Amino acid sequence: MQKYLSIKQEAYEANMQLPALGLVLFTFGNVSVVDRNEAVFAIKPSGVPYADLSPDKMVIVDYEGKVVEGNLRPSSDTKTHGVLYQHWEKIGSVVHTHSTYATSWAQSGLDIPIFGTTHADHNTMDIPCAPPMSDEMIQGDYEYQTGFQIMDCFKQRGLSYEEMEMILVGNHAPFTWGKNAAKAVYNSGVLEQVAKMALFTLQINHEAPRLKDALIKKHYERKHGSSAYYGQ
Amino acid sequence: MQKYLSIKQEAYEANMQLPALGLVLFTFGNVSVVDRNEAVFAIKPSGVPYADLSPDKMVIVDYEGKVVEGNLRPSSDTKTHGVLYQHWEKIGSVVHTHSTYATSWAQSGLDIPIFGTTHADHNTMDIPCAPPMSDEMIQGDYEYQTGFQIMDCFKQRGLSYEEMEMILVGNHAPFTWGKNAAKAVYNSGVLEQVAKMALFTLQINHEAPRLKDALIKKHYERKHGSSAYYGQ
Amino acid sequence: MQKYLSIKQEAYEANMQLPALGLVLFTFGNVSVVDRNEAVFAIKPSGVPYADLSPDKMVIVDYEGKVVEGNLRPSSDTKTHGVLYQHWEKIGSVVHTHSTYATSWAQSGLDIPIFGTTHADHNTMDIPCAPPMSDEMIQGDYEYQTGFQIMDCFKQRGLSYEEMEMILVGNHAPFTWGKNAAKAVYNSGVLEQVAKMALFTLQINHEAPRLKDALIKKHYERKHGSSAYYGQ
Amino acid sequence: MQKYLSIKQEAYEANMQLPALGLVLFTFGNVSVVDRNEAVFAIKPSGVPYADLSPDKMVIVDYEGKVVEGNLRPSSDTKTHGVLYQHWEKIGSVVHTHSTYATSWAQSGLDIPIFGTTHADHNTMDIPCAPPMSDEMIQGDYEYQTGFQIMDCFKQRGLSYEEMEMILVGNHAPFTWGKNAAKAVYNSGVLEQVAKMALFTLQINHEAPRLKDALIKKHYERKHGSSAYYGQ
Repeated sequence: MQKYLSIKQEAYEANMQLPALGLVLFTFGNVSVVDRNEAVFAIKPSGVPYADLSPDKMVIVDYEGKVVEGNLRPSSDTKTHGVLYQHWEKIGSVVHTHSTYATSWAQSGLDIPIFGTTHADHNTMDIPCAPPMSDEMIQGDYEYQTGFQIMDCFKQRGLSYEEMEMILVGNHAPFTWGKNAAKAVYNSGVLEQVAKMALFTLQINHEAPRLKDALIKKHYERKHGSSAYYGQ
Repeated sequence: MQKYLSIKQEAYEANMQLPALGLVLFTFGNVSVVDRNEAVFAIKPSGVPYADLSPDKMVIVDYEGKVVEGNLRPSSDTKTHGVLYQHWEKIGSVVHTHSTYATSWAQSGLDIPIFGTTHADHNTMDIPCAPPMSDEMIQGDYEYQTGFQIMDCFKQRGLSYEEMEMILVGNHAPFTWGKNAAKAVYNSGVLEQVAKMALFTLQINHEAPRLKDALIKKHYERKHGSSAYYGQ
Repeated sequence: MQKYLSIKQEAYEANMQLPALGLVLFTFGNVSVVDRNEAVFAIKPSGVPYADLSPDKMVIVDYEGKVVEGNLRPSSDTKTHGVLYQHWEKIGSVVHTHSTYATSWAQSGLDIPIFGTTHADHNTMDIPCAPPMSDEMIQGDYEYQTGFQIMDCFKQRGLSYEEMEMILVGNHAPFTWGKNAAKAVYNSGVLEQVAKMALFTLQINHEAPRLKDALIKKHYERKHGSSAYYGQ
Repeated sequence: MQKYLSIKQEAYEANMQLPALGLVLFTFGNVSVVDRNEAVFAIKPSGVPYADLSPDKMVIVDYEGKVVEGNLRPSSDTKTHGVLYQHWEKIGSVVHTHSTYATSWAQSGLDIPIFGTTHADHNTMDIPCAPPMSDEMIQGDYEYQTGFQIMDCFKQRGLSYEEMEMILVGNHAPFTWGKNAAKAVYNSGVLEQVAKMALFTLQINHEAPRLKDALIKKHYERKHGSSAYYGQ
């Protein structure tokens, strides 16, 4: 249908950014873009190589993951995206990848410590790693529950999804989001770079200290404050 | 001969995927494709750079490694491929590389632990590292014995070559296989990525736990169960 | 204005070298070029992707960071560049990146030890890592103070900015400079490579010794001495 | 002169392989090719970027490093190449790079242990790291003495330059050689890959054992024996 053209185009272009940024191998990633008026989102079809994608191959699904338009099967992670759209009303796009360094941190089960200003320019605290799900959640509707695992982690830590636009799911991989697909993909790229540098920082100095509070606060204001001016 | 055109073309295209995926330096890798009706397989010629390959340069050999068609010498690993085709009747293609991270694990002599869902989406247990061969095996028909070393490892551990389509040969390098060349090459790419992330995971957290059983089971069913739906 | 064409062109070309050399992700870096006669410098506009840059988008500012020409906002690091131009009269260009390995060293808070001749061909001592700024400096005019933090580190250690053309700012990232933009960008590339090899060197041998004095002296003379002949 | 056309062309093409193989940053490397009849060799000019090279820019020098033909200054490492040609009569080409991993091993001061068959296919023992030169050698004719440092290391260890075609010079970087430029450059690529995998192997398993003797012997015969058949 014509009315979904815009989100299909945006989702297509954003999905194509993942291999361009070196964030995916084969089909290990997906981007979705929501249309809040229609309460649907466009998402990558399952198992289709990036080289074979086109805007018309994007699948339109509702927040429950039910296909509204499209002949292909939607990404197997679709229900996780749907839960996030349903509960976090201000996000416009969700990205899931298995990017090398962010996934290694997720596999390690540890938050990514805030070691420098590259991190602080985007987030003013450690990047959270949600614990693995309970056996009950896993044996249930797995991808659906993954969405709740993400939201539960944010609730327990008192995090705002508008401030912290990324998470590691323990033993699994990262998810990021944003107001639109460009921002959500950008966040995946930032997360991968921050994850890589955090590992190297620890390798150089096991006792590397977290960023001092004054610097965290400054970088937060530089970007988000009333007189924000960050951009490089 | 015309009758081998199909496997020569498939072997050629699969061999060309190895440098495209960053899995080989110089000529350090080879792919073969079997024709079960003719009981022969097509394999990369020995020492020919990838840039100089063409379908007609693929060598046709029988399961003993005897050349059936072709003017070039077959890969020095040909007998290992042959043993696998002879004994594992359902595989259609074998890949051998010296890809950086998988080979480093092989050199370390350790299995690759299952640390996350990237691994679990493809294998539900650690990726095995076969021990180095006995001196007798090495001094005998070395490449032929390498095939038996692989099969012995699978037998001793009770592994199925249809479930686990990859192995590390200790002090040497990885082998992967699959129903066709596309799947066998895909497996080499997955193995390299899993090997890379397993190293980084250990560097971040020396005590990183293996994936919990419920998650392993879920990912297995997601992909292989009666209602499989995995694909991303 | 026509009179700034030359530095805008030079700044544009140097900025485009940063992604070509793999030193930046997204917009995480900037190069400026000074015109000593006019007491202004050309610098990358803030937040503009490299692919969208052109010479006419470079912003002309004075040493205080005040815009003299251009419709775009100058880089958020502009005041740091300005302080260095104002106080170090012989430098013609400044580069700031968040390149992966140099930034990891900056985050670790440690100087980069002189481990080999690659380092010694360019610097005859460890590459300094300035400590993080005091809370007072951070809460003040942050980017302006970053310039003084750099100069203070050089003063306290008795370093000459004409000899040592690079520094790590603790918890932040590197700055380099040079007589012109080509040299300043070259220095950023050298720093990243030296930072990378220093990490790997320590991983191979935690006790790797610093370069012996006679070798440091030789490499210094080879390049800077009265009969310099270095170049490869 | 026309009579040097052949070695200038060969040296040019081999030098261009260094950036293509990712072995050099900027101008950090050089290849030379010898003409045994004329007792001269062609070598990269000093400080000229690879993108600006052409066959006619190669410099022709004698074994003492004296320029025989060419307007440009020869590489600053020329005398090291000359010493090797003078004393090792069967080599046709010498390569020097500061490739990342091999240089990191050189900076660590350690031999590269033989951990696997990738190594054994090319060398049947650890890759030697020559100790740093004495202060007297450094203060003398430095690049000339570097050649003797290499040869002294081979003499002390009883190594043959026809068997082991590579060395690390402690605190400095690798040198490789071969019967012609293609082989010498190939050796630099092999060395970098072996160096990289040796580091990763140690990171996975600090106690990784050296390759067993039977396997070393087999790989040696596979390649060099009377019935050699290696090539992949």
